[in-house]
Amino acid sequence: MSNYSIGIDIGGTNTDLGLVREDGTVVGRERLATQEFTIVDKYLDAMVAAIRQLMTDYHVEHIQGIGIGAPNSNFYEGCIEAGTANLPIKERIPLKEMMEKRFNVPVVVDNDANASAYGELVYGGARGMRHSITITLGTGIGSGIVVDGKLVHGHTGNAGELGHSIIVPNGRPCSCGRSGCIETYASARGICQNYVEAAEEMGAPLSDEQRKSLTCQQVGMAAAQGDPIACKAYDTTAYYLGMALANAVNFSAPQAIFLMGGPTRAGEALMRPLRRYFNENLLFLYKDKVSLELSKLNDNNAAILGAAALCYLQS
Amino acid sequence: MSNYSIGIDIGGTNTDLGLVREDGTVVGRERLATQEFTIVDKYLDAMVAAIRQLMTDYHVEHIQGIGIGAPNSNFYEGCIEAGTANLPIKERIPLKEMMEKRFNVPVVVDNDANASAYGELVYGGARGMRHSITITLGTGIGSGIVVDGKLVHGHTGNAGELGHSIIVPNGRPCSCGRSGCIETYASARGICQNYVEAAEEMGAPLSDEQRKSLTCQQVGMAAAQGDPIACKAYDTTAYYLGMALANAVNFSAPQAIFLMGGPTRAGEALMRPLRRYFNENLLFLYKDKVSLELSKLNDNNAAILGAAALCYLQS
Repeated sequence: MSNYSIGIDIGGTNTDLGLVREDGTVVGRERLATQEFTIVDKYLDAMVAAIRQLMTDYHVEHIQGIGIGAPNSNFYEGCIEAGTANLPIKERIPLKEMMEKRFNVPVVVDNDANASAYGELVYGGARGMRHSITITLGTGIGSGIVVDGKLVHGHTGNAGELGHSIIVPNGRPCSCGRSGCIETYASARGICQNYVEAAEEMGAPLSDEQRKSLTCQQVGMAAAQGDPIACKAYDTTAYYLGMALANAVNFSAPQAIFLMGGPTRAGEALMRPLRRYFNENLLFLYKDKVSLELSKLNDNNAAILGAAALCYLQS
Repeated sequence: MSNYSIGIDIGGTNTDLGLVREDGTVVGRERLATQEFTIVDKYLDAMVAAIRQLMTDYHVEHIQGIGIGAPNSNFYEGCIEAGTANLPIKERIPLKEMMEKRFNVPVVVDNDANASAYGELVYGGARGMRHSITITLGTGIGSGIVVDGKLVHGHTGNAGELGHSIIVPNGRPCSCGRSGCIETYASARGICQNYVEAAEEMGAPLSDEQRKSLTCQQVGMAAAQGDPIACKAYDTTAYYLGMALANAVNFSAPQAIFLMGGPTRAGEALMRPLRRYFNENLLFLYKDKVSLELSKLNDNNAAILGAAALCYLQS
């Protein structure tokens, strides 16, 4: 008989639940529309029903635990903090306490980027590594840092916000209210901005309409096909991200850094310049000792696997 | 009967040895001139003799362990790496192995900045904290990072090189061969450079001779007395250091950051602008949750205490 756990990935649009076998197979999935729920109890009831449905469908009588990845969550308190921007429920959601009551198994809540790092450690490329960093590129930039086999949570419970490391003093304005965060140069939005600026520099400025409809996916596809403006945009992305990742190495000297998320689909158009700038900016002590890799997890399952992994590492 | 340990601080000029009581009192000290030793065995013999002398002088029959803080040392291998710039001995020095044979007690070797962080944790202001960072300002900038009560050594054994985090892309050239490291703006040398530039900007450029003889101590004393050029130099120092320390918080969310070393003797001339820039650059998640403090260790004893602390934490 195999062991199973539940991974839940809470996002602003969807809440994805998966039944995960201990070998990292996502056996079954359920999905809730996050925006439909404005009352905590109703939201919880729906998650409980979805979990029971999965267990019934796949004839699983017992689960090892439940891991939940969610934005703005507090690992130590096992909750989503009040006022989380993307959720319709604005009050504090004490997920750990409520779910443990219902299922009587360990429940671990952590932020989505930390969950991804757990997933990489338990099921992906970081297996067996004592020290690694996982970076999720998307609307923002998230990170999860593993030191001595454990995720770094810090004094506050929300350590690991490398996306908000300032890489350019007085640089681009960031959604966090400050300036020059790496997120403003290497997130999906940052990459679009790099494209807009590259187009202007190269004498082919975009119209307002073109700017508005531009997506990071378009830039990535164009770069993969060798479009010079898109390649320049990715080169700028890689320049700043390579420097920021080299800085991160100074902190914890990891064996590897893993990258995941939409913008990494550009593949070598991102990774080729990124490896170059990363190695150029790496302190001599760490030369040839830190590898830079794409996540080994399947994009479709990464968030659920990461969440499911949480309960294995904590038990 | 009290417990005692030995702390050894290896520097390019002196090798300082101290007999330390477990309450953090440095009971006795010995000093060797590092430059006199070009042969590993002779150097080791002299250290052993100094330790035996201390034990005899203070009637101590048994020591708990020996901690050694040294530049370019490898914690995992317990050695000083071959080719360390400031030492006359150029071969690898396997201190742990050699000292354990002589004394049959645990010996821990770590770099000097890590030793300082240990010292702050065991005997100083970080006592009882699970997460802290200690920054040593001097000729360079060193750092020791404590996560979950343990020092971060990373995959390579030499994690925690925050002094070489790039804070200004394409900034000042650094001794490490790269550009824009925080060390080039906030080390003793960096502060002198800030002074030279401030003097020029303020219409009072220094002569070549004045530049050559300028010391960080002079700048610090002038700043403490309100000299506008020196204050401007410290403001620049604080601007970049505050930003770099706010970036470090993103990593491990410590409860406090401690500063030590020569440039901190400027006191409030450094700390006042540093607190301001640090708080301005701190991500909203960490506002009012991380304190910035001067080391609580006595400057004269800090290095020996840090080294002595190493053996307590490891045992």
